[in-house]
Amino acid sequence: MSLKGPRWYTALKQAAQNPNSSLFQLATIDEAGNPHVRSLIHRAFLVPPSCPALPLLVTSTDIRTPKIQQIAHADTVELAWWINATSDQFRISGPARIFAAPEHTISPPVRDAPDCAGIKALEASGIDWETKRRELFDAVSEQMRATWCRPTPGTPLKGGYEEMNDWPVEVPKPSDAKTEKEKELAELALSNYAIIVIEPLNVDWVQIAIKPNRRTFFTREGVHWKEEVVVP
Amino acid sequence: MSLKGPRWYTALKQAAQNPNSSLFQLATIDEAGNPHVRSLIHRAFLVPPSCPALPLLVTSTDIRTPKIQQIAHADTVELAWWINATSDQFRISGPARIFAAPEHTISPPVRDAPDCAGIKALEASGIDWETKRRELFDAVSEQMRATWCRPTPGTPLKGGYEEMNDWPVEVPKPSDAKTEKEKELAELALSNYAIIVIEPLNVDWVQIAIKPNRRTFFTREGVHWKEEVVVP
Repeated sequence: MSLKGPRWYTALKQAAQNPNSSLFQLATIDEAGNPHVRSLIHRAFLVPPSCPALPLLVTSTDIRTPKIQQIAHADTVELAWWINATSDQFRISGPARIFAAPEHTISPPVRDAPDCAGIKALEASGIDWETKRRELFDAVSEQMRATWCRPTPGTPLKGGYEEMNDWPVEVPKPSDAKTEKEKELAELALSNYAIIVIEPLNVDWVQIAIKPNRRTFFTREGVHWKEEVVVP
Repeated sequence: MSLKGPRWYTALKQAAQNPNSSLFQLATIDEAGNPHVRSLIHRAFLVPPSCPALPLLVTSTDIRTPKIQQIAHADTVELAWWINATSDQFRISGPARIFAAPEHTISPPVRDAPDCAGIKALEASGIDWETKRRELFDAVSEQMRATWCRPTPGTPLKGGYEEMNDWPVEVPKPSDAKTEKEKELAELALSNYAIIVIEPLNVDWVQIAIKPNRRTFFTREGVHWKEEVVVP
């Protein structure tokens, strides 16, 4: 196995450190076959220790949002990550897996997914997804955690904006919860919180700041990456 | 017919005036049913004079890119437009129509599309799409126009980056072309240039800067918009 990370990952990791570069747009398909896309916050890269050539992207969401079901309607998702500070665009596609609270069964088992070699390598190295989910949940702000205690996203606010006044504004992580109410809210937020792990198979990197622009296609073949310079 | 534009349009038009807010991400579907997404530059809004309730979005592309074929694989496209300056996200879905050079036939005729009331209203008011396409083509920079004279986007650069040295760097608009070479390049660029017109049917507006966040669904019903306040 290659011990070196792919060149697109080195570039993306560096670009993602720019301020205001934590958002990307993730595309999925609904059951009628129509595309959908929304902005998500990049949460982490995960690199299998035994296989640095297969880095994974992690984002998070509320399990009650439509994207959770939509991810299952296609073999792959695609994200477009525009880095404003450097004028780089990374388009990344591959299968996505959802890791939710144990009481929810959402994703098919990874053993059935032929292209999830990165996820499998991480699992072989002993990653526990529930531990990782809780670790990322603990890392977000108290305000963000409170958003997972709201009623189902996208459902009508029957009581108008006033209804929002009853929603919690800050929710501690479970280990910081002191009162019964805080414990209850922390558990509710955690139960609605899911991480989405994206396994890149194809990366399309466009560099707009360089004149003439450069564009490179990276295609995963086994645990190696084929790199091809193409017309922008 | 309503003579007032929808509230989402008033907000989006204002937000889009912010610097660095000209990019959105457009999602489409390939023939295998997998989603794709890329950043595009917003070029114009078009509002039918007889029906201000039905504003359209216009972007542009090279007709040789995969998105052109992909648009036909679903009834609708969806775009996510994140406005960094105001922390607003607009997700807009609806049918898209491509208007290319007369020698290319790409989109099905609009008369077959039940949901294209905005495009139909513009046509009833006498818009000529070829004139509009040329007007928008003339408005872009000479550098941008040169990109449509390159070999097909996404094809291998067999000669490496040196091959790029042969590409034109600036291409004038046809009416400014003086030499035979300039005329030839202007015509080539114009023949590869297409505009994509998106007819919004659903708009999902999230306002992150307001605490608690606000989210509103706008659904087009005939030539009116239903507005619903929902959980963010």
